[in-house]
Amino acid sequence: MSEPGQDRVVVFDTTLRDGEQSPGASMNLSQKLRVGKALAELGVDVIEAGFAAASPGDFEAIQAIARQVEGPAICSLSRSSKGDIEASWNALKDAPRKRIHVFLATSPIHRDFKLKMAKEEIIRRAVDGVKLAREKCEDIEFSTEDAARTELEFLAEVVERVIEAGATTLNIPDTVGYALPQTYAETLSYLKKHVRGIDRVILSVHCHNDLGLAVANSLAGVMVGARQVECTINGIGERAGNASLEEIVMAIKTRADVLRVATGVKTERLYPTSRLVAQVTGLQVQRNKAIVGQNAFAHEAGIHQHGMLTHRETYEIMRPEEVGFSRSSLVLGKHSGRHALKERLSALGYKLEDAQLDKVFGEFKVLCDKKKEIYDADLEALVIHGQILAPGQRAWELEALSTTSGTGTLPAASIALRNRAGERFQEACGGDGPVDAVFKAIERITGISGKLSDYQIQSVTVGEDAQGEVVLEVEHETGVYRGRALSTDVIEGSARAYLDVVNRIALKQPAVPAEAAAVRELGTV
Amino acid sequence: MSEPGQDRVVVFDTTLRDGEQSPGASMNLSQKLRVGKALAELGVDVIEAGFAAASPGDFEAIQAIARQVEGPAICSLSRSSKGDIEASWNALKDAPRKRIHVFLATSPIHRDFKLKMAKEEIIRRAVDGVKLAREKCEDIEFSTEDAARTELEFLAEVVERVIEAGATTLNIPDTVGYALPQTYAETLSYLKKHVRGIDRVILSVHCHNDLGLAVANSLAGVMVGARQVECTINGIGERAGNASLEEIVMAIKTRADVLRVATGVKTERLYPTSRLVAQVTGLQVQRNKAIVGQNAFAHEAGIHQHGMLTHRETYEIMRPEEVGFSRSSLVLGKHSGRHALKERLSALGYKLEDAQLDKVFGEFKVLCDKKKEIYDADLEALVIHGQILAPGQRAWELEALSTTSGTGTLPAASIALRNRAGERFQEACGGDGPVDAVFKAIERITGISGKLSDYQIQSVTVGEDAQGEVVLEVEHETGVYRGRALSTDVIEGSARAYLDVVNRIALKQPAVPAEAAAVRELGTV
Repeated sequence: MSEPGQDRVVVFDTTLRDGEQSPGASMNLSQKLRVGKALAELGVDVIEAGFAAASPGDFEAIQAIARQVEGPAICSLSRSSKGDIEASWNALKDAPRKRIHVFLATSPIHRDFKLKMAKEEIIRRAVDGVKLAREKCEDIEFSTEDAARTELEFLAEVVERVIEAGATTLNIPDTVGYALPQTYAETLSYLKKHVRGIDRVILSVHCHNDLGLAVANSLAGVMVGARQVECTINGIGERAGNASLEEIVMAIKTRADVLRVATGVKTERLYPTSRLVAQVTGLQVQRNKAIVGQNAFAHEAGIHQHGMLTHRETYEIMRPEEVGFSRSSLVLGKHSGRHALKERLSALGYKLEDAQLDKVFGEFKVLCDKKKEIYDADLEALVIHGQILAPGQRAWELEALSTTSGTGTLPAASIALRNRAGERFQEACGGDGPVDAVFKAIERITGISGKLSDYQIQSVTVGEDAQGEVVLEVEHETGVYRGRALSTDVIEGSARAYLDVVNRIALKQPAVPAEAAAVRELGTV
Repeated sequence: MSEPGQDRVVVFDTTLRDGEQSPGASMNLSQKLRVGKALAELGVDVIEAGFAAASPGDFEAIQAIARQVEGPAICSLSRSSKGDIEASWNALKDAPRKRIHVFLATSPIHRDFKLKMAKEEIIRRAVDGVKLAREKCEDIEFSTEDAARTELEFLAEVVERVIEAGATTLNIPDTVGYALPQTYAETLSYLKKHVRGIDRVILSVHCHNDLGLAVANSLAGVMVGARQVECTINGIGERAGNASLEEIVMAIKTRADVLRVATGVKTERLYPTSRLVAQVTGLQVQRNKAIVGQNAFAHEAGIHQHGMLTHRETYEIMRPEEVGFSRSSLVLGKHSGRHALKERLSALGYKLEDAQLDKVFGEFKVLCDKKKEIYDADLEALVIHGQILAPGQRAWELEALSTTSGTGTLPAASIALRNRAGERFQEACGGDGPVDAVFKAIERITGISGKLSDYQIQSVTVGEDAQGEVVLEVEHETGVYRGRALSTDVIEGSARAYLDVVNRIALKQPAVPAEAAAVRELGTV
């Protein structure tokens, strides 16, 4: 790979190897290829595509990525043994740029209990592995597994010997997430000072997040001279995961004033890549996850919102566009202040005088104590009616719903809605499942149709009165809408959440569309 | 509150205040009381129960917690104004131990754009607020909002003046999550060195996680003398959230060798408290979250598993029991090695000879490339039949399913299962919803009944062929079981996931129970 400058940090992504070791995160070949291509587009420097000797599936995935993913160097992990190194090489050899990554544990606990090898044997095995790998490939990384718990002198000795043997990148993993930023920096500084030849290689950090310090430890390493960071998208990985790529990259970008380094990552690809990995692995990102969580750029508290609206930087150190979010979202709730309410109403087209605003704000506060999240439709109702939308004031009200489904039968839904004028519309539809059938029936009656881009149900309470919360997201030509509903019946909850979205879309559209009127004539009660 | 020793760190929990400012996390009164009591049981020193002047609901919640939660000091946030401080006092006054928390922003960007106040005015306002609060209450905390972006000299001046005015805890927030551990420690060290009277007060840290550094910054503060940490359960809070209480507490405990301080937190209450907050706020914890995520103590990779089984500390720096997890879970998957497979089979009661194990291990690897997670039932099938359980070999097979539900009708499910002997059993049940009805019908036929402790559906694919993945967890007297199934029909998916669990329980029990046999006679086709 091209030599980075003194201020360039190599981003080594191991989502497909260490990330995939997360319980439940295994990916199949085509998923790995999609992620590999996304990582190349993101601009990472090295993709660790797997552990060739671990399984036939890993081997095939590395081979496919080596052949099909362009840009980054492709890497395969190997124990320090002939079989593993040859498997890595065989999987990698078609890649334009390739790296063999050899590892061996060095800490006393691993030497004594896992490997059952003396120090001399560790060194001999490590040197032999690196030499063998170097015969095949120019770009060789060596990792001293559990380095953060290894005696410094022995660690320095191993590192020096594998550099002599031809390793070009030297990785010092905190395999068990035990280090503190200070202790980790001390370890790396010790190596910088005591290992002959260390300035000829790239020093690399690989941190696990067991104590929540993986990103801080990685940055501490960079501050004392590490020039490669190993990390994963969304911080996935065994146990509490690896250092999160998006956090490291954005810390380096946002605090370049102190860190004085840069990466080659296209930061606006961070959010889409995060979504892809979450979807493919099934490991959801929590809402308050830094950089890529749904709330990362959302502000609720009134004081904060006032600040935000006055001057964006008051509470935002990064722009959401920088990481590929379309915009920061102000969610209204009980902590929202008068100023935030005014701003949102203004965005909805209502310019209120101060006295009017005072009145609406008072009602808004009362509503907030009842309802967690205040949607635009609720706000509009407050303005127009001085109260939450009463049944007759919503564009569409659910009157009756009935579904049948099962094995060997076609799922069907029959639904009756009533419009503002009190007219009743009825429709039945089939679908892939009862929920799909319900949505299709609602679409037919209302004439409003969008693309369902997210759908989730979670049990909110547990036990006798267990309730499920349905949250869904619909993309419509007028915007993206989230709806939610709570019910003991997942089908009914889904219908209500979808109708919540439809009602908000309807507020922006004139009356009942023609198609629905036609349907009405066909309807029976 | 009682004075902590030099090595004791005060844990100030703000889950109910800053945590509740997470968009969508608002809690009602009874939920806040439950969380408050759980925090007291956890052993935190201070509970910030809300921001009394923010809304009537906040005021009531603080008052209720002040009256009903025993142990920790109860605290209310206030801007530095008469109205806010009086609201806080009125809400708090019934608490045996209480604290008023006054804040005012000090950074140039907040002074110029949000507050529109000159430096002198900031100081006057801060001093007046603290004096007023001190007239009412002995325990006064002052926070210099956005301290991490404030000029050091001005920050020192403000801090010195509010200490003179009577503040007893001085909090230096990194409100926007901009600090690095190094810069944050420098700020605190500067104050320690230049502020008269600083050793008389407790210096406090309050960090946000925008760059993923909240925990590291908090610990950096502790290392230079801070003796209070402000944090939230699960790290919830505005945007990317606050420093996570459980991570700070476990880092302090696990690395006491370096940090040389302690907290009063009962760590074995961390996991139950995390679950409660996730349930009440609806903010789910991601699986790879440090300390409290479902995967935090789970190991998949074969090499790691071998190490784990040989000597626990090889890969575990904390014991799961320390944080209230019942045990670390080894999940089998493609990265699992021969040793982990052998161990799991042994736990299931199968002692294999090496040659047998080799055969099963080969088949296991092939299966792993097809299936993400390998359940015990899959392993048993591999051993017994050398393949995945064929239809006739599962205890219960779904033969037919039909459900109806809707508004105004009682949800019902009719289900037919076939046992290993090929006999058909049929049963119909009502329930709170169609899913509940299906589970009840399955329970009646099989005689196997457990407590549903988790139930989730996520859309896996989006668009025409959208599929939902049902994941559920059942607590049964023989253990905790997770089942999953993928289907376009959420009801059918739920039935299959539940049956997956039932089949695994059935493997541990003899034949068909009597009750189900009786039911069979009542069944019709």
